[in-house]
Amino acid sequence: MRNLTAENITDAVIEQFAGCDDARLKTLLNSLVTHLHAFLRDVEPTEAEWGQAIDFLTRTGQMCDDQRQEFILLSDTLGVTMLVDAINHRVTSPEVSESTVLGPFYVPDPPAAEQGQAIDGDVEGEPLFVEGRVHDEHGEPLAGVTIDVWQSDGEGFYDVQKEIEGASLRARFTTDDQGRYAFWTVTPSAYPIPSDGPVGQMLEATGRHPYRPAHVHFMLMAEGFETLVTQVFAEGDDYLDSDAVFGVKDSLVTEFRLQEPGRAPDGRVLDIPYRHLCYDFGLQPR
Amino acid sequence: MRNLTAENITDAVIEQFAGCDDARLKTLLNSLVTHLHAFLRDVEPTEAEWGQAIDFLTRTGQMCDDQRQEFILLSDTLGVTMLVDAINHRVTSPEVSESTVLGPFYVPDPPAAEQGQAIDGDVEGEPLFVEGRVHDEHGEPLAGVTIDVWQSDGEGFYDVQKEIEGASLRARFTTDDQGRYAFWTVTPSAYPIPSDGPVGQMLEATGRHPYRPAHVHFMLMAEGFETLVTQVFAEGDDYLDSDAVFGVKDSLVTEFRLQEPGRAPDGRVLDIPYRHLCYDFGLQPR
Repeated sequence: MRNLTAENITDAVIEQFAGCDDARLKTLLNSLVTHLHAFLRDVEPTEAEWGQAIDFLTRTGQMCDDQRQEFILLSDTLGVTMLVDAINHRVTSPEVSESTVLGPFYVPDPPAAEQGQAIDGDVEGEPLFVEGRVHDEHGEPLAGVTIDVWQSDGEGFYDVQKEIEGASLRARFTTDDQGRYAFWTVTPSAYPIPSDGPVGQMLEATGRHPYRPAHVHFMLMAEGFETLVTQVFAEGDDYLDSDAVFGVKDSLVTEFRLQEPGRAPDGRVLDIPYRHLCYDFGLQPR
Repeated sequence: MRNLTAENITDAVIEQFAGCDDARLKTLLNSLVTHLHAFLRDVEPTEAEWGQAIDFLTRTGQMCDDQRQEFILLSDTLGVTMLVDAINHRVTSPEVSESTVLGPFYVPDPPAAEQGQAIDGDVEGEPLFVEGRVHDEHGEPLAGVTIDVWQSDGEGFYDVQKEIEGASLRARFTTDDQGRYAFWTVTPSAYPIPSDGPVGQMLEATGRHPYRPAHVHFMLMAEGFETLVTQVFAEGDDYLDSDAVFGVKDSLVTEFRLQEPGRAPDGRVLDIPYRHLCYDFGLQPR
Protein backbone atom coordinates (compact mmCIF):
# COMPACT_ATOMS: atom_id res chain seq x y z
CA MET A 1 0.00 0.00 0.00
CA ARG A 2 2.58 2.53 -1.21
CA ASN A 3 2.94 4.77 -4.25
CA LEU A 4 -0.81 5.17 -4.60
CA THR A 5 -2.00 7.09 -7.64
CA ALA A 6 -5.23 8.73 -8.74
CA GLU A 7 -5.93 5.47 -10.55
CA ASN A 8 -5.39 2.88 -7.79
CA ILE A 9 -6.08 4.68 -4.51
CA THR A 10 -9.80 3.85 -4.47
CA ASP A 11 -9.09 0.12 -4.45
CA ALA A 12 -6.47 0.62 -1.72
CA VAL A 13 -8.95 2.43 0.54
CA ILE A 14 -11.64 -0.21 -0.02
CA GLU A 15 -9.07 -2.90 0.79
CA GLN A 16 -8.55 -1.26 4.20
CA PHE A 17 -12.25 -1.80 4.97
CA ALA A 18 -11.97 -5.52 4.13
CA GLY A 19 -11.73 -6.44 7.83
CA CYS A 20 -14.93 -4.64 8.82
CA ASP A 21 -17.20 -7.12 10.65
CA ASP A 22 -20.35 -5.05 10.11
CA ALA A 23 -21.41 -6.03 6.59
CA ARG A 24 -23.81 -3.12 6.17
CA LEU A 25 -21.24 -0.57 7.34
CA LYS A 26 -18.71 -2.06 4.95
CA THR A 27 -21.17 -1.78 2.06
CA LEU A 28 -21.96 1.84 2.95
CA LEU A 29 -18.31 2.89 3.23
CA ASN A 30 -17.15 1.03 0.12
CA SER A 31 -19.91 2.68 -1.90
CA LEU A 32 -19.22 6.09 -0.32
CA VAL A 33 -15.51 5.89 -1.16
CA THR A 34 -16.24 4.72 -4.71
CA HIS A 35 -18.68 7.55 -5.43
CA LEU A 36 -16.72 10.23 -3.55
CA HIS A 37 -13.52 9.37 -5.41
CA ALA A 38 -15.42 9.30 -8.73
CA PHE A 39 -16.69 12.81 -7.95
CA LEU A 40 -13.13 14.01 -7.27
CA ARG A 41 -11.76 12.43 -10.45
CA ASP A 42 -14.64 14.03 -12.32
CA VAL A 43 -14.09 17.62 -11.13
CA GLU A 44 -10.34 17.45 -10.31
CA PRO A 45 -10.48 19.97 -7.45
CA THR A 46 -7.53 22.23 -6.78
CA GLU A 47 -6.03 22.07 -3.30
CA ALA A 48 -7.59 25.48 -2.61
CA GLU A 49 -11.03 24.08 -3.53
CA TRP A 50 -10.41 21.07 -1.26
CA GLY A 51 -9.55 23.52 1.53
CA GLN A 52 -12.75 25.46 0.87
CA ALA A 53 -14.76 22.24 1.09
CA ILE A 54 -13.10 21.32 4.42
CA ASP A 55 -13.85 24.82 5.70
CA PHE A 56 -17.48 24.66 4.50
CA LEU A 57 -18.11 21.30 6.19
CA THR A 58 -16.40 22.46 9.38
CA ARG A 59 -18.48 25.62 9.58
CA THR A 60 -21.63 23.63 8.82
CA GLY A 61 -20.95 21.37 11.81
CA GLN A 62 -20.07 24.28 14.04
CA MET A 63 -23.33 26.06 13.15
CA CYS A 64 -25.28 23.18 14.72
CA ASP A 65 -26.66 23.32 18.24
CA ASP A 66 -29.81 22.24 20.06
CA GLN A 67 -31.90 24.61 17.95
CA ARG A 68 -30.15 24.60 14.61
CA GLN A 69 -29.23 21.66 12.40
CA GLU A 70 -27.23 23.04 9.47
CA PHE A 71 -26.32 19.58 8.09
CA ILE A 72 -30.02 18.76 7.76
CA LEU A 73 -30.45 22.05 5.89
CA LEU A 74 -27.57 21.05 3.61
CA SER A 75 -29.15 17.63 3.05
CA ASP A 76 -32.50 19.32 2.37
CA THR A 77 -31.17 21.90 -0.10
CA LEU A 78 -29.17 19.32 -2.09
CA GLY A 79 -32.25 17.12 -2.51
CA VAL A 80 -30.69 14.38 -0.36
CA THR A 81 -33.43 14.36 2.25
CA MET A 82 -36.23 14.02 -0.31
CA LEU A 83 -34.28 11.33 -2.17
CA VAL A 84 -33.90 9.31 1.05
CA ASP A 85 -37.60 9.92 1.70
CA ALA A 86 -38.50 8.72 -1.80
CA ILE A 87 -36.36 5.59 -1.40
CA ASN A 88 -38.00 4.73 1.93
CA HIS A 89 -41.61 5.68 1.21
CA ARG A 90 -42.80 4.42 -2.12
CA VAL A 91 -46.55 4.96 -1.91
CA THR A 92 -48.42 1.92 -3.14
CA SER A 93 -52.08 2.91 -2.66
CA PRO A 94 -53.98 6.12 -3.47
CA GLU A 95 -55.56 5.88 0.00
CA VAL A 96 -52.15 6.33 1.65
CA SER A 97 -50.77 9.85 2.16
CA GLU A 98 -47.44 10.91 0.71
CA SER A 99 -44.53 11.84 2.95
CA THR A 100 -42.12 14.73 2.76
CA VAL A 101 -39.16 16.17 4.68
CA LEU A 102 -39.10 16.28 8.47
CA GLY A 103 -37.21 19.56 8.41
CA PRO A 104 -34.93 20.89 11.14
CA PHE A 105 -37.60 22.23 13.50
CA TYR A 106 -39.23 19.09 14.87
CA VAL A 107 -39.00 18.75 18.65
CA PRO A 108 -39.84 15.27 20.00
CA ASP A 109 -42.60 14.88 22.60
CA PRO A 110 -44.51 18.12 22.15
CA PRO A 111 -47.12 19.05 24.78
CA ALA A 112 -50.34 16.99 24.64
CA ALA A 113 -53.44 18.90 23.57
CA GLU A 114 -57.19 18.19 23.55
CA GLN A 115 -59.31 17.81 20.46
CA GLY A 116 -60.17 21.28 19.14
CA GLN A 117 -57.70 23.08 21.38
CA ALA A 118 -55.82 26.21 20.26
CA ILE A 119 -52.04 25.81 20.02
CA ASP A 120 -51.19 29.42 19.21
CA GLY A 121 -50.96 30.71 22.79
CA ASP A 122 -49.97 34.37 22.65
CA VAL A 123 -49.00 34.30 18.97
CA GLU A 124 -50.70 36.99 16.88
CA GLY A 125 -51.97 36.03 13.45
CA GLU A 126 -54.85 35.13 11.20
CA PRO A 127 -56.86 32.34 12.87
CA LEU A 128 -56.71 28.95 11.17
CA PHE A 129 -58.96 26.00 11.98
CA VAL A 130 -57.38 22.68 11.03
CA GLU A 131 -59.34 19.43 11.00
CA GLY A 132 -59.54 16.10 9.28
CA ARG A 133 -59.67 12.35 9.60
CA VAL A 134 -57.06 9.62 9.72
CA HIS A 135 -57.81 6.33 8.00
CA ASP A 136 -56.10 3.11 7.01
CA GLU A 137 -55.27 1.92 3.49
CA HIS A 138 -58.91 0.94 2.93
CA GLY A 139 -60.30 4.28 4.12
CA GLU A 140 -61.43 2.91 7.51
CA PRO A 141 -61.08 5.48 10.33
CA LEU A 142 -58.22 4.99 12.78
CA ALA A 143 -58.81 5.93 16.42
CA GLY A 144 -56.00 6.67 18.88
CA VAL A 145 -53.48 7.84 16.27
CA THR A 146 -50.86 10.18 17.74
CA ILE A 147 -50.50 13.34 15.64
CA ASP A 148 -47.64 15.75 16.29
CA VAL A 149 -48.15 19.10 14.59
CA TRP A 150 -45.70 21.97 14.28
CA GLN A 151 -45.54 25.09 12.15
CA SER A 152 -44.18 28.59 11.73
CA ASP A 153 -46.04 31.69 12.78
CA GLY A 154 -47.46 34.24 10.33
CA GLU A 155 -44.01 35.75 9.92
CA GLY A 156 -42.34 32.44 9.14
CA PHE A 157 -40.66 31.73 12.48
CA TYR A 158 -40.82 28.57 14.61
CA ASP A 159 -40.81 28.80 18.40
CA VAL A 160 -37.26 27.46 18.60
CA GLN A 161 -36.09 30.38 16.46
CA LYS A 162 -37.63 32.92 18.83
CA GLU A 163 -36.47 33.89 22.30
CA ILE A 164 -39.39 32.33 24.10
CA GLU A 165 -39.71 29.66 26.75
CA GLY A 166 -41.56 26.44 25.99
CA ALA A 167 -43.48 25.12 23.01
CA SER A 168 -45.55 27.35 20.79
CA LEU A 169 -47.38 26.34 17.60
CA ARG A 170 -46.53 22.71 18.28
CA ALA A 171 -48.61 20.06 20.06
CA ARG A 172 -49.57 16.38 20.16
CA PHE A 173 -53.14 15.28 19.41
CA THR A 174 -54.84 11.90 19.44
CA THR A 175 -57.57 10.97 16.96
CA ASP A 176 -61.01 10.24 18.43
CA ASP A 177 -63.06 7.09 17.80
CA GLN A 178 -64.00 8.33 14.34
CA GLY A 179 -60.37 9.04 13.45
CA ARG A 180 -60.87 12.81 13.74
CA TYR A 181 -58.44 15.51 14.80
CA ALA A 182 -59.00 19.28 15.06
CA PHE A 183 -57.18 22.32 16.40
CA TRP A 184 -57.01 26.10 16.18
CA THR A 185 -53.81 27.88 15.26
CA VAL A 186 -52.62 30.83 13.18
CA THR A 187 -52.05 30.73 9.43
CA PRO A 188 -48.37 29.99 8.69
CA SER A 189 -46.53 31.93 6.02
CA ALA A 190 -43.91 31.10 3.42
CA TYR A 191 -40.47 31.63 4.93
CA PRO A 192 -36.78 31.41 4.14
CA ILE A 193 -34.90 28.50 5.68
CA PRO A 194 -32.25 29.91 8.08
CA SER A 195 -29.82 31.55 5.69
CA ASP A 196 -27.24 33.13 8.00
CA GLY A 197 -24.96 30.06 7.83
CA PRO A 198 -22.94 28.08 5.28
CA VAL A 199 -26.07 26.71 3.58
CA GLY A 200 -27.43 30.23 3.11
CA GLN A 201 -24.08 31.22 1.61
CA MET A 202 -24.28 28.27 -0.79
CA LEU A 203 -27.78 29.28 -1.90
CA GLU A 204 -26.72 32.92 -2.31
CA ALA A 205 -23.57 32.00 -4.26
CA THR A 206 -25.58 29.85 -6.65
CA GLY A 207 -28.45 32.27 -7.19
CA ARG A 208 -31.01 30.13 -5.37
CA HIS A 209 -33.66 31.59 -3.07
CA PRO A 210 -34.10 30.06 0.41
CA TYR A 211 -37.92 30.08 0.52
CA ARG A 212 -40.37 27.35 1.37
CA PRO A 213 -44.10 27.61 0.63
CA ALA A 214 -46.39 27.98 3.67
CA HIS A 215 -47.15 24.64 5.31
CA VAL A 216 -48.12 22.82 8.49
CA HIS A 217 -45.99 19.83 9.57
CA PHE A 218 -47.58 16.56 10.69
CA MET A 219 -46.13 13.37 12.11
CA LEU A 220 -48.64 10.52 12.53
CA MET A 221 -47.82 7.47 14.63
CA ALA A 222 -50.04 4.41 15.14
CA GLU A 223 -49.42 0.82 16.19
CA GLY A 224 -49.09 -1.44 13.16
CA PHE A 225 -48.62 1.44 10.69
CA GLU A 226 -45.62 3.18 9.24
CA THR A 227 -44.98 6.54 10.82
CA LEU A 228 -46.01 9.27 8.38
CA VAL A 229 -43.90 12.44 8.31
CA THR A 230 -45.48 14.97 6.04
CA GLN A 231 -46.58 18.55 5.45
CA VAL A 232 -49.73 20.18 4.09
CA PHE A 233 -49.04 23.14 1.80
CA ALA A 234 -51.20 26.18 1.08
CA GLU A 235 -52.61 26.27 -2.43
CA GLY A 236 -51.64 29.43 -4.33
CA ASP A 237 -48.36 29.97 -2.51
CA ASP A 238 -45.64 31.62 -4.65
CA TYR A 239 -43.03 29.00 -3.78
CA LEU A 240 -44.88 25.75 -4.49
CA ASP A 241 -42.84 25.25 -7.66
CA SER A 242 -39.46 26.28 -6.31
CA ASP A 243 -39.40 24.94 -2.74
CA ALA A 244 -35.80 25.32 -1.51
CA VAL A 245 -35.91 21.77 -0.09
CA PHE A 246 -37.77 20.03 -2.98
CA GLY A 247 -40.59 18.82 -0.70
CA VAL A 248 -43.84 19.73 -2.47
CA LYS A 249 -46.18 17.04 -3.81
CA ASP A 250 -49.53 17.83 -5.42
CA SER A 251 -51.36 15.50 -3.09
CA LEU A 252 -50.13 17.58 -0.13
CA VAL A 253 -51.33 20.94 -1.49
CA THR A 254 -54.78 22.12 -0.43
CA GLU A 255 -56.68 25.33 0.07
CA PHE A 256 -56.35 27.16 3.38
CA ARG A 257 -59.83 28.53 2.64
CA LEU A 258 -60.55 32.12 3.69
CA GLN A 259 -63.83 32.39 5.66
CA GLU A 260 -65.99 35.37 6.56
CA PRO A 261 -66.41 36.24 10.25
CA GLY A 262 -69.02 34.01 11.87
CA ARG A 263 -69.55 30.55 13.32
CA ALA A 264 -66.67 28.11 12.61
CA PRO A 265 -67.23 24.35 12.05
CA ASP A 266 -66.56 23.63 15.74
CA GLY A 267 -69.08 26.25 16.92
CA ARG A 268 -66.59 28.97 17.84
CA VAL A 269 -67.79 32.41 16.75
CA LEU A 270 -65.22 34.76 15.20
CA ASP A 271 -65.63 38.49 14.56
CA ILE A 272 -62.72 38.54 12.09
CA PRO A 273 -62.02 36.51 8.95
CA TYR A 274 -60.28 33.17 9.50
CA ARG A 275 -59.07 30.26 7.40
CA HIS A 276 -60.14 26.64 7.30
CA LEU A 277 -57.83 23.75 6.41
CA CYS A 278 -59.37 20.32 6.07
CA TYR A 279 -57.05 17.39 5.34
CA ASP A 280 -57.45 13.63 5.71
CA PHE A 281 -54.45 11.32 6.14
CA GLY A 282 -54.15 7.67 5.10
CA LEU A 283 -51.60 5.46 6.86
CA GLN A 284 -49.63 2.59 5.36
CA PRO A 285 -49.69 -0.72 7.28
CA ARG A 286 -46.29 -1.75 8.53
CA MET B 1 -40.83 21.09 -9.49
CA ARG B 2 -43.38 18.99 -7.61
CA ASN B 3 -43.92 15.27 -7.10
CA LEU B 4 -40.20 14.52 -7.29
CA THR B 5 -39.24 10.86 -7.22
CA ALA B 6 -36.05 8.89 -6.66
CA GLU B 7 -35.77 8.88 -10.44
CA ASN B 8 -36.16 12.58 -11.30
CA ILE B 9 -35.01 14.51 -8.22
CA THR B 10 -31.36 14.71 -9.32
CA ASP B 11 -32.31 16.60 -12.48
CA ALA B 12 -34.58 18.89 -10.45
CA VAL B 13 -31.77 19.82 -8.04
CA ILE B 14 -29.32 20.46 -10.89
CA GLU B 15 -31.95 22.63 -12.58
CA GLN B 16 -32.00 24.83 -9.45
CA PHE B 17 -28.30 25.55 -9.92
CA ALA B 18 -28.88 26.66 -13.54
CA GLY B 19 -28.78 30.33 -12.56
CA CYS B 20 -25.40 30.12 -10.84
CA ASP B 21 -23.11 32.77 -12.36
CA ASP B 22 -19.92 31.10 -11.15
CA ALA B 23 -19.30 28.45 -13.81
CA ARG B 24 -16.77 26.50 -11.74
CA LEU B 25 -19.05 26.43 -8.68
CA LYS B 26 -21.91 25.26 -10.87
CA THR B 27 -19.76 22.44 -12.27
CA LEU B 28 -18.66 21.38 -8.77
CA LEU B 29 -22.20 21.35 -7.35
CA ASN B 30 -23.76 19.62 -10.34
CA SER B 31 -21.16 16.88 -10.15
CA LEU B 32 -21.46 16.64 -6.37
CA VAL B 33 -25.24 16.24 -6.55
CA THR B 34 -24.96 13.67 -9.35
CA HIS B 35 -22.44 11.50 -7.50
CA LEU B 36 -24.02 11.95 -4.06
CA HIS B 37 -27.45 10.95 -5.36
CA ALA B 38 -25.92 7.98 -7.22
CA PHE B 39 -24.36 6.86 -3.92
CA LEU B 40 -27.75 7.09 -2.19
CA ARG B 41 -29.54 5.18 -4.95
CA ASP B 42 -26.78 2.59 -4.74
CA VAL B 43 -26.98 1.91 -0.99
CA GLU B 44 -30.62 2.93 -0.35
CA PRO B 45 -30.03 4.18 3.20
CA THR B 46 -32.75 3.85 5.80
CA GLU B 47 -33.88 7.03 7.48
CA ALA B 48 -32.05 5.88 10.62
CA GLU B 49 -28.83 5.56 8.61
CA TRP B 50 -29.38 9.01 7.15
CA GLY B 51 -29.79 10.31 10.71
CA GLN B 52 -26.56 8.59 11.76
CA ALA B 53 -24.74 10.23 8.86
CA ILE B 54 -26.09 13.67 9.82
CA ASP B 55 -24.99 13.04 13.40
CA PHE B 56 -21.53 11.84 12.31
CA LEU B 57 -20.94 14.91 10.14
CA THR B 58 -22.22 17.23 12.87
CA ARG B 59 -19.92 15.72 15.50
CA THR B 60 -17.02 15.85 13.06
CA GLY B 61 -17.51 19.59 12.61
CA GLN B 62 -17.99 20.17 16.31
CA MET B 63 -14.72 18.32 17.09
CA CYS B 64 -12.80 20.96 15.14
CA ASP B 65 -11.05 23.87 16.81
CA ASP B 66 -7.80 25.80 16.42
CA GLN B 67 -5.78 22.69 17.23
CA ARG B 68 -7.88 19.88 15.79
CA GLN B 69 -9.23 19.46 12.27
CA GLU B 70 -11.41 16.37 12.27
CA PHE B 71 -12.69 16.90 8.70
CA ILE B 72 -9.09 16.79 7.43
CA LEU B 73 -8.66 13.53 9.35
CA LEU B 74 -11.81 12.22 7.67
CA SER B 75 -10.53 13.30 4.27
CA ASP B 76 -7.16 11.68 5.04
CA THR B 77 -8.58 8.36 6.24
CA LEU B 78 -10.94 8.03 3.25
CA GLY B 79 -8.07 8.55 0.82
CA VAL B 80 -9.57 11.85 -0.35
CA THR B 81 -6.56 13.96 0.58
CA MET B 82 -4.09 11.71 -1.23
CA LEU B 83 -6.38 11.54 -4.27
CA VAL B 84 -6.54 15.36 -4.43
CA ASP B 85 -2.76 15.40 -3.98
CA ALA B 86 -2.31 12.89 -6.80
CA ILE B 87 -4.57 14.90 -9.11
CA ASN B 88 -2.66 18.12 -8.43
CA HIS B 89 0.90 16.82 -8.34
CA ARG B 90 1.66 14.46 -11.18
CA VAL B 91 5.45 14.19 -11.00
CA THR B 92 7.00 14.51 -14.45
CA SER B 93 10.74 14.23 -13.73
CA PRO B 94 12.73 11.84 -11.54
CA GLU B 95 14.64 14.87 -10.23
CA VAL B 96 11.45 16.29 -8.66
CA SER B 97 10.36 15.08 -5.21
CA GLU B 98 6.99 13.49 -4.63
CA SER B 99 4.37 15.14 -2.44
CA THR B 100 2.13 13.71 0.23
CA VAL B 101 -0.52 14.87 2.72
CA LEU B 102 -0.19 18.11 4.65
CA GLY B 103 -1.85 16.55 7.67
CA PRO B 104 -3.75 18.40 10.38
CA PHE B 105 -0.76 19.64 12.42
CA TYR B 106 0.81 22.27 10.17
CA VAL B 107 0.95 25.74 11.72
CA PRO B 108 1.71 28.56 9.27
CA ASP B 109 4.68 30.85 9.90
CA PRO B 110 6.74 28.75 12.31
CA PRO B 111 9.67 30.43 14.11
CA ALA B 112 12.70 31.13 11.90
CA ALA B 113 15.80 29.08 12.73
CA GLU B 114 19.46 29.19 11.69
CA GLN B 115 21.27 26.55 9.64
CA GLY B 116 22.18 23.65 11.94
CA GLN B 117 20.06 24.87 14.85
CA ALA B 118 18.30 22.46 17.23
CA ILE B 119 14.48 22.67 17.16
CA ASP B 120 13.79 20.25 19.99
CA GLY B 121 14.05 22.75 22.87
CA ASP B 122 13.24 20.88 26.08
CA VAL B 123 11.90 17.77 24.33
CA GLU B 124 13.55 14.52 25.49
CA GLY B 125 14.38 11.93 22.89
CA GLU B 126 16.94 10.25 20.70
CA PRO B 127 18.92 12.98 18.86
CA LEU B 128 18.39 13.18 15.11
CA PHE B 129 20.52 15.19 12.71
CA VAL B 130 18.66 16.09 9.52
CA GLU B 131 20.39 17.54 6.47
CA GLY B 132 20.20 17.68 2.73
CA ARG B 133 20.12 19.80 -0.39
CA VAL B 134 17.36 21.38 -2.42
CA HIS B 135 17.72 21.48 -6.18
CA ASP B 136 15.73 22.29 -9.30
CA GLU B 137 14.46 19.87 -11.95
CA HIS B 138 17.96 19.65 -13.45
CA GLY B 139 19.67 18.96 -10.11
CA GLU B 140 21.05 22.50 -9.79
CA PRO B 141 21.17 23.73 -6.16
CA LEU B 142 18.54 26.24 -5.09
CA ALA B 143 19.57 28.90 -2.57
CA GLY B 144 17.09 30.86 -0.44
CA VAL B 145 14.39 28.18 -0.41
CA THR B 146 12.08 28.46 2.59
CA ILE B 147 11.71 25.09 4.37
CA ASP B 148 9.09 24.65 7.07
CA VAL B 149 9.63 21.49 9.11
CA TRP B 150 7.35 19.97 11.72
CA GLN B 151 7.17 16.59 13.40
CA SER B 152 6.00 14.58 16.39
CA ASP B 153 8.17 13.86 19.40
CA GLY B 154 9.47 10.38 20.28
CA GLU B 155 6.09 9.51 21.74
CA GLY B 156 4.14 10.57 18.68
CA PHE B 157 2.77 13.92 19.84
CA TYR B 158 2.96 17.29 18.13
CA ASP B 159 3.37 20.48 20.15
CA VAL B 160 -0.24 21.53 19.45
CA GLN B 161 -1.43 18.30 21.09
CA LYS B 162 0.49 19.01 24.28
CA GLU B 163 -0.24 21.62 26.91
CA ILE B 164 2.76 23.78 26.14
CA GLU B 165 3.20 27.38 25.07
CA GLY B 166 4.77 28.19 21.71
CA ALA B 167 6.24 26.12 18.90
CA SER B 168 8.23 22.96 19.55
CA LEU B 169 9.64 20.60 16.93
CA ARG B 170 8.65 23.03 14.21
CA ALA B 171 10.72 25.74 12.54
CA ARG B 172 11.46 27.60 9.29
CA PHE B 173 14.85 27.26 7.60
CA THR B 174 16.32 28.84 4.49
CA THR B 175 18.72 26.99 2.20
CA ASP B 176 22.25 28.41 1.90
CA ASP B 177 24.00 29.30 -1.36
CA GLN B 178 24.66 25.64 -2.05
CA GLY B 179 21.01 24.72 -1.46
CA ARG B 180 21.79 23.08 1.88
CA TYR B 181 19.65 22.84 5.00
CA ALA B 182 20.46 21.16 8.35
CA PHE B 183 19.00 20.94 11.84
CA TRP B 184 19.02 18.91 15.02
CA THR B 185 15.87 17.44 16.46
CA VAL B 186 14.65 14.24 18.15
CA THR B 187 13.70 11.06 16.30
CA PRO B 188 9.93 11.00 15.69
CA SER B 189 7.94 7.84 16.29
CA ALA B 190 5.03 6.14 14.59
CA TYR B 191 1.80 7.38 16.14
CA PRO B 192 -1.96 7.04 15.95
CA ILE B 193 -3.86 9.92 14.38
CA PRO B 194 -6.13 11.47 17.02
CA SER B 195 -8.70 8.74 17.57
CA ASP B 196 -10.92 10.15 20.33
CA GLY B 197 -13.40 11.64 17.84
CA PRO B 198 -15.79 10.50 15.10
CA VAL B 199 -12.96 9.51 12.74
CA GLY B 200 -11.43 7.29 15.42
CA GLN B 201 -14.86 5.71 15.92
CA MET B 202 -15.10 5.05 12.17
CA LEU B 203 -11.67 3.37 12.15
CA GLU B 204 -12.55 1.31 15.24
CA ALA B 205 -15.93 0.25 13.83
CA THR B 206 -14.32 -0.89 10.59
CA GLY B 207 -11.37 -2.73 12.13
CA ARG B 208 -8.78 -0.25 10.87
CA HIS B 209 -5.81 0.88 12.98
CA PRO B 210 -5.09 4.61 13.29
CA TYR B 211 -1.27 4.48 12.96
CA ARG B 212 1.05 6.41 10.70
CA PRO B 213 4.68 5.41 10.18
CA ALA B 214 7.31 7.75 11.73
CA HIS B 215 8.01 10.77 9.54
CA VAL B 216 9.20 14.37 9.39
CA HIS B 217 7.02 16.90 7.54
CA PHE B 218 8.52 19.37 5.08
CA MET B 219 7.01 22.27 3.13
CA LEU B 220 9.35 23.90 0.63
CA MET B 221 8.57 27.26 -0.94
CA ALA B 222 10.63 29.09 -3.57
CA GLU B 223 9.89 31.81 -6.11
CA GLY B 224 9.13 30.29 -9.51
CA PHE B 225 8.57 26.76 -8.17
CA GLU B 226 5.55 24.80 -7.04
CA THR B 227 5.29 24.58 -3.27
CA LEU B 228 6.24 21.06 -2.21
CA VAL B 229 4.32 19.56 0.74
CA THR B 230 5.83 16.24 1.68
CA GLN B 231 7.08 13.90 4.39
CA VAL B 232 10.18 11.73 4.80
CA PHE B 233 9.45 8.33 6.34
CA ALA B 234 11.71 6.08 8.41
CA GLU B 235 12.75 2.90 6.64
CA GLY B 236 11.78 -0.24 8.55
CA ASP B 237 8.75 1.28 10.26
CA ASP B 238 5.96 -1.23 10.96
CA TYR B 239 3.27 0.96 9.37
CA LEU B 240 4.83 1.82 6.01
CA ASP B 241 2.45 -0.56 4.27
CA SER B 242 -0.72 0.33 6.18
CA ASP B 243 -0.48 4.10 6.74
CA ALA B 244 -3.91 5.19 8.05
CA VAL B 245 -3.88 8.14 5.63
CA PHE B 246 -2.44 6.38 2.54
CA GLY B 247 0.53 8.79 2.28
CA VAL B 248 3.62 6.59 1.85
CA LYS B 249 5.64 6.62 -1.36
CA ASP B 250 8.84 4.62 -1.82
CA SER B 251 10.76 7.70 -2.91
CA LEU B 252 9.98 9.32 0.45
CA VAL B 253 11.23 6.42 2.59
CA THR B 254 14.83 6.54 3.76
CA GLU B 255 17.00 5.29 6.61
CA PHE B 256 17.12 7.31 9.81
CA ARG B 257 20.57 5.77 10.28
CA LEU B 258 21.64 4.90 13.82
CA GLN B 259 25.10 6.28 14.65
CA GLU B 260 27.54 5.47 17.44
CA PRO B 261 28.39 8.23 19.94
CA GLY B 262 31.04 10.55 18.51
CA ARG B 263 31.46 13.49 16.15
CA ALA B 264 28.39 14.25 14.00
CA PRO B 265 28.67 15.57 10.40
CA ASP B 266 28.33 19.17 11.63
CA GLY B 267 31.13 18.77 14.20
CA ARG B 268 28.91 18.40 17.26
CA VAL B 269 30.20 15.67 19.61
CA LEU B 270 27.64 13.31 21.17
CA ASP B 271 28.22 10.89 24.03
CA ILE B 272 25.08 8.91 23.21
CA PRO B 273 23.92 7.22 20.01
CA TYR B 274 22.02 9.45 17.57
CA ARG B 275 20.42 9.13 14.17
CA HIS B 276 21.26 10.74 10.85
CA LEU B 277 18.67 11.51 8.17
CA CYS B 278 19.96 12.80 4.86
CA TYR B 279 17.40 13.76 2.20
CA ASP B 280 17.60 15.91 -0.92
CA PHE B 281 14.52 17.59 -2.39
CA GLY B 282 13.87 18.50 -6.02
CA LEU B 283 11.38 21.27 -6.83
CA GLN B 284 9.11 21.50 -9.85
CA PRO B 285 9.16 24.79 -11.80
CA ARG B 286 5.82 26.57 -11.73
